[in-house]
Amino acid sequence: MALLYKADPVRGQHWQALFAEHAPDIEWRAWPDIGNPDDIEYLAAWQAPDDLQRVLPNLKVLFALSAGVDQLDLSRLPPELPVVRLLDPGITRGMCEYASWAVLSLHRDMLRYRQQQVARCWQAHLLQPAMNRRVGVMGLGTQAQQILATLAPLGFALSGWARSAHQLAGVDCYAGTAQLPAFLSQCDILLCVLPLTEQTQGILNRQLFAQLPQGAALINMGRGGHLVEEDLLDALDSGQLSGAVLDVLQEEPAPTEHPFWAHPQIVLTPHIAAMTQPASAFGVLLENIRRFERGEPMTGEVDRHKGY
Amino acid sequence: MALLYKADPVRGQHWQALFAEHAPDIEWRAWPDIGNPDDIEYLAAWQAPDDLQRVLPNLKVLFALSAGVDQLDLSRLPPELPVVRLLDPGITRGMCEYASWAVLSLHRDMLRYRQQQVARCWQAHLLQPAMNRRVGVMGLGTQAQQILATLAPLGFALSGWARSAHQLAGVDCYAGTAQLPAFLSQCDILLCVLPLTEQTQGILNRQLFAQLPQGAALINMGRGGHLVEEDLLDALDSGQLSGAVLDVLQEEPAPTEHPFWAHPQIVLTPHIAAMTQPASAFGVLLENIRRFERGEPMTGEVDRHKGY
Repeated sequence: MALLYKADPVRGQHWQALFAEHAPDIEWRAWPDIGNPDDIEYLAAWQAPDDLQRVLPNLKVLFALSAGVDQLDLSRLPPELPVVRLLDPGITRGMCEYASWAVLSLHRDMLRYRQQQVARCWQAHLLQPAMNRRVGVMGLGTQAQQILATLAPLGFALSGWARSAHQLAGVDCYAGTAQLPAFLSQCDILLCVLPLTEQTQGILNRQLFAQLPQGAALINMGRGGHLVEEDLLDALDSGQLSGAVLDVLQEEPAPTEHPFWAHPQIVLTPHIAAMTQPASAFGVLLENIRRFERGEPMTGEVDRHKGY
Repeated sequence: MALLYKADPVRGQHWQALFAEHAPDIEWRAWPDIGNPDDIEYLAAWQAPDDLQRVLPNLKVLFALSAGVDQLDLSRLPPELPVVRLLDPGITRGMCEYASWAVLSLHRDMLRYRQQQVARCWQAHLLQPAMNRRVGVMGLGTQAQQILATLAPLGFALSGWARSAHQLAGVDCYAGTAQLPAFLSQCDILLCVLPLTEQTQGILNRQLFAQLPQGAALINMGRGGHLVEEDLLDALDSGQLSGAVLDVLQEEPAPTEHPFWAHPQIVLTPHIAAMTQPASAFGVLLENIRRFERGEPMTGEVDRHKGY
């Protein structure tokens, strides 16, 4: 029985060492040196090889090495193959850190102070108490819930929106398209951690921005595909939005001529909100393998119908 | 009986409205229209008038409208006059927000990503788990303790240092000059919220930086007088320090030619970490007046010997 790893080779060495130490019964193979394909029962990958069924005829589980699986074309995978997202607590912690930093940056006018530093201007602006700001999180999965729990002690008013109904202490929860306008109308800072699906592609667009309070701010920690980038530029130009912190873009790496780089109201970071950490992710992956071996449900199994 | 207000006139109107509504027995006077000086028993001020004893002969308490009192020359005040610092929960919340933002900015390499955005460079860098970073707070008063409590859920290792011994759950506490080297040797991010006194003037200097781990970072939210500014520039140049977030300077507003404005490894903000908020500060001030009237101890009374 072997596991095939197909992702970044440097991090692969960390993974390999962890398997050697803690799960010597699982033979390690690293793409493209797959050896006898018939041995391979598990694939741990960022992207799957084409024609998976032919290349790995005995594959039992595809473990994505990411929290999102939008990089995989689920329709081209064998229909009965379990696909498992990586719910790494290290990723979640990274997302919480970035979210806190981004919310505080917008709450405390740090984009304006960044401009003032460039302009050598020493001028203070009035400070709003956190309780007067509402942070609205789009997405209410594991990551979103942890982000909301991290923001709560800072005193922000909190809302959340997702496709299906949720109940969370201290968070005003909204569900589905019907409740989206009510959710948006109160969000001073809108934070997107949605999965990218056909339904959420381009959801951060002109129509959505128009439903936010004037001067609201945006944080996109989901995927670049959520945001219609020209619509954000227009909303910043018109003053409908006051600023944005973006960790993801339609095209990554961003091309040199991308208008976001030099925009004074945009903070752009190179998809670093969270990174899979072999040290914390290994335990999750191994536990899922053991669960599969025992015939138990795995954590993070993708619902092919929902797409996440 | 009257209270004389001597600080920013715009905020003074907020204060005046709060006194009129909640404490009509205390007559409001605003500097320089002090009326009959003999009526004035309380002075609420950022800075005291010269020759206080002569100007306000019946003054009973000086309420500073700030958490620090280093702007007052305590030696020139009547020796028996109680001086009270403003322990405004609004100030403390502001300090906690700024501290979290600054620590996360340094922890998550945001100064480097700020430079990369200017250079249009999309490059991710390895991410350290928060538990591998030690944040050391200089000062262990009310604000410092709340800052430590705000940082704790993010997972950082925490240390604190003050003049006198403290015990705080989850924080490695150090006291006095003798334990300063041990404290410093472990701090990846050093955060100063000390009061400014003769003992702490210039404490953030070359000798102190040399005792930090190489590549450590500095946050100064205390007073500009804590930092020897040339020594910070040298420490950044040599690589002994990797970055700094500064909210205070020796000279404020900073002159246009100040070298910190354009330094890529310095984030400079115009003394905005916290501002006295009349809405939250009023209750604290009024409660202290009532305590004084009842002969009870007030919160925030300054120890003239210690200077804070």
